[in-house]
Amino acid sequence: MAVSPPKFDDAFRAQLAALFAWRRDVRRFRADPVDPALVAALLEQACLSPSVGNSQPWRFVLVEDAARRAAVTDNFRRANADALADYAGDRAVNYASLKLAGLVEAPVHLAVFADTETGRGHGLGRRTMPEMLAYSAVGAVQTLWLAARAAGLGVGWVSILDPAEVHAALDVPAGWKLVAYLCLGWPVEEHDDPELERADWQARGGLADFLVRR
Amino acid sequence: MAVSPPKFDDAFRAQLAALFAWRRDVRRFRADPVDPALVAALLEQACLSPSVGNSQPWRFVLVEDAARRAAVTDNFRRANADALADYAGDRAVNYASLKLAGLVEAPVHLAVFADTETGRGHGLGRRTMPEMLAYSAVGAVQTLWLAARAAGLGVGWVSILDPAEVHAALDVPAGWKLVAYLCLGWPVEEHDDPELERADWQARGGLADFLVRR
Repeated sequence: MAVSPPKFDDAFRAQLAALFAWRRDVRRFRADPVDPALVAALLEQACLSPSVGNSQPWRFVLVEDAARRAAVTDNFRRANADALADYAGDRAVNYASLKLAGLVEAPVHLAVFADTETGRGHGLGRRTMPEMLAYSAVGAVQTLWLAARAAGLGVGWVSILDPAEVHAALDVPAGWKLVAYLCLGWPVEEHDDPELERADWQARGGLADFLVRR
Repeated sequence: MAVSPPKFDDAFRAQLAALFAWRRDVRRFRADPVDPALVAALLEQACLSPSVGNSQPWRFVLVEDAARRAAVTDNFRRANADALADYAGDRAVNYASLKLAGLVEAPVHLAVFADTETGRGHGLGRRTMPEMLAYSAVGAVQTLWLAARAAGLGVGWVSILDPAEVHAALDVPAGWKLVAYLCLGWPVEEHDDPELERADWQARGGLADFLVRR
């Protein structure tokens, strides 16, 4: 459309940097409900994410049924117990002390799938990298997360789950691949450092640890 | 750290929404160089992305060597010719008319890998979903993309590539999985709609097409 591009200034960029710095994986939610109109607005923004071949493969499932939520919560508990069994000594003690999901408290459960059989995009860009469909859905998660944090809403990504069981519990089409199971709600607290850093599980590195030149 | 969380207001949220709307996959770059300090600043922001178990598996490779860049460009040309051969009729004519990469013009080539063998994070959150490492690197790409657009810089994601050949051309560790090959540079033009939509390849749907309740 023939409209003028926005001009982003230093003040906006500074606020954007603060948004990146204060976006957190939240597992401690208040019980207050989230306005469904806000959730819809965040999902609308997520749909502005990039997607391979403009395939828009993101599929959002708002999990509202109590029995389905309970099935996912049970799934997490079992997967988390299995994970704990992999650790020993101090590491096991640390793991057991971590709060790794807020499934019980979070007012909103949102599952994000990638439709691996979508005709949208006509296959463009995924012939040699079919995983691009899942990656496009991941980009939508990150967009949603940032938009949520800008609204003061917390998001937590739960991956300690058997994806096949989540798929069955939510009764979605066979071609949908689980990418993320998200909890949304108003956070109990705000931090600019990850909970796993505060809990001495894993510190953060600097760019020099992650950058090479070729 | 004990600092006050930022307050994001309606004006910021409106600008953030504009950023999402005007972020584009750019394939038409001006020849002007990009300040390396800007690239480093964008990468620093990308490192603020979420990662499973705080594993920070993103590995950034700035591809500066002309022979390596040429190898990737050749890789794209072959993969693109193979892809074209999959289409027929009007769809083939449309595909052949698309500009799907700006590898020759872009001043900055940035490959993003996920280190699938990293010890960081101690395995947390990826026992049942090992793909979370790649997804964490994808989140970093989306963060980088938004930060770049806020600075006026264009990003294009090239996935019409043989990933094994890219891996070999860049001579990176065996456990690094290619997630994205990005071109960065100053864009020739600005749009709020995708090039693939303007070229009648694939239109965009609305949220109702992508949302279900369970």
